[in-house]
Amino acid sequence: MQIAVIGASDCTADEYACARELGRLIAQQQATLVCGGMGGVMEAACRGARESGGRTVGIVPDTGNGNPYLDVIIRTGLGHARNVIVVQSGDAVIAVGGSHGTLSEIAIALKMRRPVFGIRSWDIPGIVPCAGPEEAVRRAVGSHP
Amino acid sequence: MQIAVIGASDCTADEYACARELGRLIAQQQATLVCGGMGGVMEAACRGARESGGRTVGIVPDTGNGNPYLDVIIRTGLGHARNVIVVQSGDAVIAVGGSHGTLSEIAIALKMRRPVFGIRSWDIPGIVPCAGPEEAVRRAVGSHP
Amino acid sequence: MQIAVIGASDCTADEYACARELGRLIAQQQATLVCGGMGGVMEAACRGARESGGRTVGIVPDTGNGNPYLDVIIRTGLGHARNVIVVQSGDAVIAVGGSHGTLSEIAIALKMRRPVFGIRSWDIPGIVPCAGPEEAVRRAVGSHP
Amino acid sequence: MQIAVIGASDCTADEYACARELGRLIAQQQATLVCGGMGGVMEAACRGARESGGRTVGIVPDTGNGNPYLDVIIRTGLGHARNVIVVQSGDAVIAVGGSHGTLSEIAIALKMRRPVFGIRSWDIPGIVPCAGPEEAVRRAVGSHP
Repeated sequence: MQIAVIGASDCTADEYACARELGRLIAQQQATLVCGGMGGVMEAACRGARESGGRTVGIVPDTGNGNPYLDVIIRTGLGHARNVIVVQSGDAVIAVGGSHGTLSEIAIALKMRRPVFGIRSWDIPGIVPCAGPEEAVRRAVGSHP
Repeated sequence: MQIAVIGASDCTADEYACARELGRLIAQQQATLVCGGMGGVMEAACRGARESGGRTVGIVPDTGNGNPYLDVIIRTGLGHARNVIVVQSGDAVIAVGGSHGTLSEIAIALKMRRPVFGIRSWDIPGIVPCAGPEEAVRRAVGSHP
Repeated sequence: MQIAVIGASDCTADEYACARELGRLIAQQQATLVCGGMGGVMEAACRGARESGGRTVGIVPDTGNGNPYLDVIIRTGLGHARNVIVVQSGDAVIAVGGSHGTLSEIAIALKMRRPVFGIRSWDIPGIVPCAGPEEAVRRAVGSHP
Repeated sequence: MQIAVIGASDCTADEYACARELGRLIAQQQATLVCGGMGGVMEAACRGARESGGRTVGIVPDTGNGNPYLDVIIRTGLGHARNVIVVQSGDAVIAVGGSHGTLSEIAIALKMRRPVFGIRSWDIPGIVPCAGPEEAVRRAVGSHP
């Protein structure tokens, strides 16, 4: 199973801690973590996944190497259009917090009928709000056929 | 000036009439209408613009020819990722109604700091709600340096 | 009819003159000129088309405004991936000269079964070599159903 | 190190065997195999890599699941534009055989200054022709700083 974690590259300390815990839990479920590969929420999730021996994939907007916690680097060079690839590549999507970039990913995920779980994120019909990382990962894994 | 009109391909009769009037007003302002090139709101806006002698550009998700009211066809073959190109190509963005695809475009537009005007659309901080096509086009044109 | 003109942004004086003449002839055929919107061959073709009252479309790799001779600007932000959109948007493709970027466009055009005409360009099976702008435009227009 | 293997989805039995051996050797070098994720050369390389315990990444043109030998699936939905992402994601590129799609990838790779190694592939200046999988993998690994 591939789980996409989305959130801002410029996040709060609370969001960073939350995303890191999310990464740890995703790795413990043997799921692959897919994300946008940059800083903030993305970096924290990758860092957590690595700490639990998990596999991380960064789909970066430029042609660089992304954050230091990536096992696989997908260099898109597509700018904001890479957001679409991130959510399409997730069998489920977990959003932490809420910038406009994150909102664009949530919207595409809902359009593609991906299950979307939110932790302190946008209040849009279709997102399942979760109390924290544990609930989000449990529900994301449960949504997978 | 290029004005992007965004909205669902599957829209109500009211939204269709609204988008058609929007197209007419955009053409009267000598602005170029940019859109996703498909049916519903996109078709209605192109049809209205053509009726007023305006220029229409359709940035289609496939490699086909889009709706019958296009002067220029941009065949992206990119699927949902073409949404990003639509809003980036608009100097201002006007949204009619509100599917998830439209929400993804609004989110990217706000991230790119494009002015976004909404007619019966999503209630997201950053969108300027407008009473109808006339107000939306007046404000969109006014936002252009 | 939409004709895509492809070639390097860093071109010789001969290629610039050739592309400018190409633009003029395309405009005289009432066809829309589609290109990558940047300098060199692209700029020259747009300049020529404008001089003959034609319509020019630039599908630029960044989110800027491209060269000064564009009627319609498509801001992709996709980097090299925008090359695919340029050739898909042409009903026929004319190549002037031959960088690696041009070769990538020729290859995609041949894969998409677009007719491709070359003026001092790559010698790849499938490209129709032409003596100059006049022959290329005549054949491109003739290839359109 | 990430090595991109490119080649046609519709290949000969010889090309299939060659790509499978290529996948085995890439895995033995502990490199990650990146490819377009579909059939033919792509499938063969993934199959070989899996047989040697290696990691495979498929960057597919649609939003499906690609061939059965993928560890990571990147669902782009971008059609031919995904070719650009494949070669950008490789630190080196190895081409087997030569369709037009492969040629477009070679051209982008050369433009991006990626080292490109060819086995019975296009004869384009810049490609290093190799006698077989062993030479190609040895040179690809040697090109990595």
